[in-house]
Amino acid sequence: MEPGHTTSTRPSNGAAGPTIQLISYSPSDIRELNIDDIEQLPSLLSQPDMVHWLNVDSVDNVELVQRIGEMFSLHPLAIEDVHHVHQRSKVEEYDGYLFIVVRMAALENDDVVTEQLSLFLRGHCVVTFQVGRPGDCLGPVRERIRRANAPIRRFGADFLMYSILDASIDSYFPLLEQFGERLDELEEVAEAPRVRGLIGELHRIRRNLLTMRRSIWPLRDAINGLLRTDHELIHAETRFHLRDCLDHTVQLIDVSETYREVCSDLRELQYANVNQRTNDVMRVLTIIATIFMPLSFVASLYGMNFKTEVSEWNMPELSWRFGYPFALGIMLTIFLAMIVSFWRWGWIGRQSNLE
Amino acid sequence: MEPGHTTSTRPSNGAAGPTIQLISYSPSDIRELNIDDIEQLPSLLSQPDMVHWLNVDSVDNVELVQRIGEMFSLHPLAIEDVHHVHQRSKVEEYDGYLFIVVRMAALENDDVVTEQLSLFLRGHCVVTFQVGRPGDCLGPVRERIRRANAPIRRFGADFLMYSILDASIDSYFPLLEQFGERLDELEEVAEAPRVRGLIGELHRIRRNLLTMRRSIWPLRDAINGLLRTDHELIHAETRFHLRDCLDHTVQLIDVSETYREVCSDLRELQYANVNQRTNDVMRVLTIIATIFMPLSFVASLYGMNFKTEVSEWNMPELSWRFGYPFALGIMLTIFLAMIVSFWRWGWIGRQSNLE
Amino acid sequence: MEPGHTTSTRPSNGAAGPTIQLISYSPSDIRELNIDDIEQLPSLLSQPDMVHWLNVDSVDNVELVQRIGEMFSLHPLAIEDVHHVHQRSKVEEYDGYLFIVVRMAALENDDVVTEQLSLFLRGHCVVTFQVGRPGDCLGPVRERIRRANAPIRRFGADFLMYSILDASIDSYFPLLEQFGERLDELEEVAEAPRVRGLIGELHRIRRNLLTMRRSIWPLRDAINGLLRTDHELIHAETRFHLRDCLDHTVQLIDVSETYREVCSDLRELQYANVNQRTNDVMRVLTIIATIFMPLSFVASLYGMNFKTEVSEWNMPELSWRFGYPFALGIMLTIFLAMIVSFWRWGWIGRQSNLE
Amino acid sequence: MEPGHTTSTRPSNGAAGPTIQLISYSPSDIRELNIDDIEQLPSLLSQPDMVHWLNVDSVDNVELVQRIGEMFSLHPLAIEDVHHVHQRSKVEEYDGYLFIVVRMAALENDDVVTEQLSLFLRGHCVVTFQVGRPGDCLGPVRERIRRANAPIRRFGADFLMYSILDASIDSYFPLLEQFGERLDELEEVAEAPRVRGLIGELHRIRRNLLTMRRSIWPLRDAINGLLRTDHELIHAETRFHLRDCLDHTVQLIDVSETYREVCSDLRELQYANVNQRTNDVMRVLTIIATIFMPLSFVASLYGMNFKTEVSEWNMPELSWRFGYPFALGIMLTIFLAMIVSFWRWGWIGRQSNLE
Amino acid sequence: MEPGHTTSTRPSNGAAGPTIQLISYSPSDIRELNIDDIEQLPSLLSQPDMVHWLNVDSVDNVELVQRIGEMFSLHPLAIEDVHHVHQRSKVEEYDGYLFIVVRMAALENDDVVTEQLSLFLRGHCVVTFQVGRPGDCLGPVRERIRRANAPIRRFGADFLMYSILDASIDSYFPLLEQFGERLDELEEVAEAPRVRGLIGELHRIRRNLLTMRRSIWPLRDAINGLLRTDHELIHAETRFHLRDCLDHTVQLIDVSETYREVCSDLRELQYANVNQRTNDVMRVLTIIATIFMPLSFVASLYGMNFKTEVSEWNMPELSWRFGYPFALGIMLTIFLAMIVSFWRWGWIGRQSNLE
Repeated sequence: MEPGHTTSTRPSNGAAGPTIQLISYSPSDIRELNIDDIEQLPSLLSQPDMVHWLNVDSVDNVELVQRIGEMFSLHPLAIEDVHHVHQRSKVEEYDGYLFIVVRMAALENDDVVTEQLSLFLRGHCVVTFQVGRPGDCLGPVRERIRRANAPIRRFGADFLMYSILDASIDSYFPLLEQFGERLDELEEVAEAPRVRGLIGELHRIRRNLLTMRRSIWPLRDAINGLLRTDHELIHAETRFHLRDCLDHTVQLIDVSETYREVCSDLRELQYANVNQRTNDVMRVLTIIATIFMPLSFVASLYGMNFKTEVSEWNMPELSWRFGYPFALGIMLTIFLAMIVSFWRWGWIGRQSNLE
Repeated sequence: MEPGHTTSTRPSNGAAGPTIQLISYSPSDIRELNIDDIEQLPSLLSQPDMVHWLNVDSVDNVELVQRIGEMFSLHPLAIEDVHHVHQRSKVEEYDGYLFIVVRMAALENDDVVTEQLSLFLRGHCVVTFQVGRPGDCLGPVRERIRRANAPIRRFGADFLMYSILDASIDSYFPLLEQFGERLDELEEVAEAPRVRGLIGELHRIRRNLLTMRRSIWPLRDAINGLLRTDHELIHAETRFHLRDCLDHTVQLIDVSETYREVCSDLRELQYANVNQRTNDVMRVLTIIATIFMPLSFVASLYGMNFKTEVSEWNMPELSWRFGYPFALGIMLTIFLAMIVSFWRWGWIGRQSNLE
Repeated sequence: MEPGHTTSTRPSNGAAGPTIQLISYSPSDIRELNIDDIEQLPSLLSQPDMVHWLNVDSVDNVELVQRIGEMFSLHPLAIEDVHHVHQRSKVEEYDGYLFIVVRMAALENDDVVTEQLSLFLRGHCVVTFQVGRPGDCLGPVRERIRRANAPIRRFGADFLMYSILDASIDSYFPLLEQFGERLDELEEVAEAPRVRGLIGELHRIRRNLLTMRRSIWPLRDAINGLLRTDHELIHAETRFHLRDCLDHTVQLIDVSETYREVCSDLRELQYANVNQRTNDVMRVLTIIATIFMPLSFVASLYGMNFKTEVSEWNMPELSWRFGYPFALGIMLTIFLAMIVSFWRWGWIGRQSNLE
Repeated sequence: MEPGHTTSTRPSNGAAGPTIQLISYSPSDIRELNIDDIEQLPSLLSQPDMVHWLNVDSVDNVELVQRIGEMFSLHPLAIEDVHHVHQRSKVEEYDGYLFIVVRMAALENDDVVTEQLSLFLRGHCVVTFQVGRPGDCLGPVRERIRRANAPIRRFGADFLMYSILDASIDSYFPLLEQFGERLDELEEVAEAPRVRGLIGELHRIRRNLLTMRRSIWPLRDAINGLLRTDHELIHAETRFHLRDCLDHTVQLIDVSETYREVCSDLRELQYANVNQRTNDVMRVLTIIATIFMPLSFVASLYGMNFKTEVSEWNMPELSWRFGYPFALGIMLTIFLAMIVSFWRWGWIGRQSNLE
Repeated sequence: MEPGHTTSTRPSNGAAGPTIQLISYSPSDIRELNIDDIEQLPSLLSQPDMVHWLNVDSVDNVELVQRIGEMFSLHPLAIEDVHHVHQRSKVEEYDGYLFIVVRMAALENDDVVTEQLSLFLRGHCVVTFQVGRPGDCLGPVRERIRRANAPIRRFGADFLMYSILDASIDSYFPLLEQFGERLDELEEVAEAPRVRGLIGELHRIRRNLLTMRRSIWPLRDAINGLLRTDHELIHAETRFHLRDCLDHTVQLIDVSETYREVCSDLRELQYANVNQRTNDVMRVLTIIATIFMPLSFVASLYGMNFKTEVSEWNMPELSWRFGYPFALGIMLTIFLAMIVSFWRWGWIGRQSNLE
């Protein structure tokens, strides 16, 4: 399974079939219908002065999708792509219609999942197929259509296509913002000692940013291609708006790239801190061990039990008048020698700080 | 030897010559033959209203390949490429025919191996040469041909070429999926302590992804080139399907790149954990050593055997009334001083966790 | 929130509305006005032989910006971009006018922040919208306009546009220089032992350089595009100057990239030093421990209290005539053996230095 | 000195001048001559129905090279490039002739060295200049020319040029294969503990692959350029073969890139193993020290010599009836507490393995 | 300040003005003059059959540079670039003349510094402006002009421009060679133990290579652009030579990139060695500590002073007949158990070497 793609198909409880919604509108009129019988469609779409948006809320029903494909004379390959819900975002031109795949983003358990939205633009009709969860990020488009004087009502189906595309792209911004805020928080703790879980958290964010970038990247190329070709379905005004759309994708890619770099940099910062810390810990250990091991040795030496009464060679120091001060003197000498060495090696004393 | 390429030539047991299979079909008719005598071929291919697919299952028989090359007037350089089975995927145009090399993927001992498939498209004929293992990933194509009403029966040899190409590319998807699932598993254990073999496993996956990407990458460029040129052998409908094929290669490259990045990230995560762990272990060691070395030294000190009876300078503490409590007091003081130091250095006490 | 973008909107104290400043000039004449009533504008802009620069100092007043947009017949999408102050730098062509977004840089608490400047060039008018802080980096442009014989007075509105663009780009140079000087300082301390905060400081600089590069990068492409198209609003002389502008952006990108690489290299250098240092510390510890642990063991051994009087098997060495010298001899032997081992392993003695 | 370039000029012992060899052939005829007097050349090259290959085996003789340059009217810049034997591979078009520089690869002390071969193609003549070692990788070309019915005899000088180019490129394959085999071996030992020299060996291979890639990379661009231009010296058949040549260079670059990546991956694998190992070693050390330091302290404590007879405060435990079992009990308690701690921290017990 | 750029302006002692040198030559004639009065120039440049090279040795004198700019009708922007001596290398076309900026390289305290050379080519005149140090790398050009039959005397001002460009580029080669030799030396010591300063030295070389690459990179693009346009100032012969020039820049970039990669690889090699070494040191420490800590503990245990006469529970071992051998036996057992463990863990015994 690809990371960041939704796999769960919507649990289809027996009764409820896939929701098919038709919104038809003209500058002066609007009509919203839930379609139960697919065969009604041709008559419903017969008004040429209206823009029709047919939204199918689940692609699980294979026959339904096929039937709609036939009604709009869509190419079997495109219909196949509707079913395979792990497509990359793309814009494909067919004779007389456009096929667009775009991935909408959402957050599931703090992880980004993307859901495929397949869109056909043919004449006055826009047909969209979604995977499962109904209407998440297209709500604002519906709202705008319902408003009597909204600009969208004055333009054609290509503007509707743009609005849907734009709404899908806009679904990425709040997610990205959320990761940005999280990174700001992490940046503040990254220099603190011993932050457990930081690296794991950075890893998670990086992976999510990767998912987002992968979904957006192909869309940028696709929109760019659409703008360059002189497609008769796309009018001049829509073209301006698509350029804006392109700007948004570029910004999304740009920001997610930046965040990924920030992740890497924070990881390096944390590494460096752990490394520096290990070095500090080691130095303390070494200083303590280097001082006390020789001292303990001297103490152990004079703790030996060789019998002084047997021979004058056996530990005569023990019977010296100043034996104990002598031993203490040796220890003090060793101690001072060590301290001086550490000082000269720069292990103790004030370390240099950046001014 | 290049990594990821099959080297073992098929063990050719005496009797069985290379299998040559000819499938000829038209919308209404189909004929499958195993060819024993190569010289029969010209008469078998003489029906111009049928599409002929000649599949040679082993390229070891040099004379056979040469002979077929002559029959179809193929360029010696192309025939040479058929023999050298480590070619990169490519599409080459010759006068009047196309030469395509594509690598089919399979799993051998958990490692990806790729096998060269050489394909010629000339007029109504498609000639394919395989290295060894018969028919693995082309089975679905044969099945589709055998079905009476399948679309493939209605189209020409270029569509057959596309179908074979598509089947070869499809052989990568289950492998990629398998690595993806493995990575999901590894991601879950990557934060666990001490996972032996994780780095090695990640290394193996990375290498396999590299092999796959290397096989697919040139194919993308080749198909792209084929789509851009206006080759008369490729009809409009096939062109649509080749565009789909191109989409698949792009997706394969995209996903394998992503997985490679995930591998790197997991490796970094594991490094960071090991590093953090080493730091933790060191800290415990240092704390223990720093506390007990001075204590042991004091104990050793009063374990020295200087004779107190010889001189009042020799360890008078031993004869003090509160000598022992005095020594214990020194030790306790050292112990507490250490604990306070560790506390202030942030070595002990609650570490900060990410909320 | 995106890093490096100003978020704070200007605190708008009740009375003071947004400052709108109009500078109109011709080679011989100049007039500066603070506009209070926006409806005066049409009459003020009616002189066709003058160049008009209308500067709006805050984009918070939505109605005001909308009204100005209507006056100059600007596209709603462009006006929307004026409000959304996190745009990437860009140059967009509309029918009859140009829309330019550029980000001006400033330092806030040692961190780079960039502020959006939106600019419209229509006929003889240049309209600029700023976010908040008035006139920072455009002061020099105003000064030049006020000078009687300045070249800018002789050229048209396109030259004014260039001058504003150039001043915005020039705002990056002192910042970049400052980071360059800081890096020179850091380079000198990077080889010193134990520089606390170096890695954090490098991290901060890298992040700031990233912010700057991200702001400049799109501008380069935009100016490049402007130069390539044959836009009638841009005259030949301005074109020469825009080429110079482009040079500056390329240099900014180039230098910031270099500095980022220097940051990485310094980080690696510091890592290597910490690593080398840890190794040195460990070696000292190991040498001391390896010498004194066996010696202490021998001393402890002869500190055992087995009763020699009970049996001749119990520590007869204690009663030897030369028991103590014997023990000292063993210790000396161990000590010398260790020293020789260390010497042969290259742990002690002069290390090799680069000549 | 550049890495991977031969520097040693051939030791020219007094008598032997540079070897100049002329091979002239037509489909039916062949003639091989060693030229002593350069002035003979014009008459020898006067037969227009033959292809002439003039091979100069040393570029040290400056006058000779100059003289040949004059005979063939070669540009002084090209002649200069013949003398400077560290050129990058390239194809340059001059009026009426082609100048090609290609680097032949060989192994010297296990390291790749590349030797410059300069080639001029003018009319029916091919002139080649080598640096020193005679005829290494061009032997197969000579062999093929000598065979009566070889295809090379039927084609013109451009085909000879191709054959020499191809032979030069083919000199890289066995070297690359050798490194590939070495990497396979190294991969097997990379997971073993403590492989001394592995990193150094990987470094050596990486450097050699870099040398090879650098020599091949520019050649790919050069051949590509040659194929794209419509040069009259290159016939259609040779063009097919040059395309094959190009394929080989692309494959060489591709494989060497892959090997370089494998090198990096193996290096990372080895790092990770060393890191993991260091962690293991540290853990053992810490466990041992953490257990025995407190135990030894307790033992030392009761080894102190405070005089119990002086005061009841002095080590009364020594005179307790169960003093010794009491001390042992303390030690056992400490030991068990430590073991339990280690167990809970996951330092001891079965570590998790990947299934 | 940018790294690698000279900042020190030449100390201008009162009397000596900037040196202005004019060399005028034709195939038959040559004249060298030091110009004191700039107003003489127009008459001196009036001979149209000669090529004139005016070299200004310091750009500090602002009025002088301005005046020369006016004499040759140079664009103010170009003159500004002459003053700003941190320009990137570039070639700019103006109406009727070319403006070229190139950076000459020199070594200062072992570090690469680059000095800006600004060059104008207008008709028969070449005007060059240098920053300070006179004539370093242009000496060879002057020498060639002075030679009576040198090719440069036969060609026009464009060839002089090429010669100056070429001399500037050639100033990089000895520097690069020097770094290459240094890297060869470092490579030999990189595997040696404890090379202090290696990482710092590699850092220094990397930074210098970065400086060089940054200076050369834009020049490559500029010359490439010059070759592609069909500028009337550049004749066919000069074009051949510029192509050679381009080759040199490509080679410089190529080699400096390679050296940078070698630097990185050497750094990695050194890291790996330090890491491996730390591991070795730790292992020795752990082995020693693991062996002697338990032994010392046992010895300390029997050094406790519990009074055996008080109770039979107190250290009865001290009075055993074989108490001492018993203790030694325990120690030996521990020792052997440790050695066997180490052997099985692969910590001692012959490590595996690469064959």
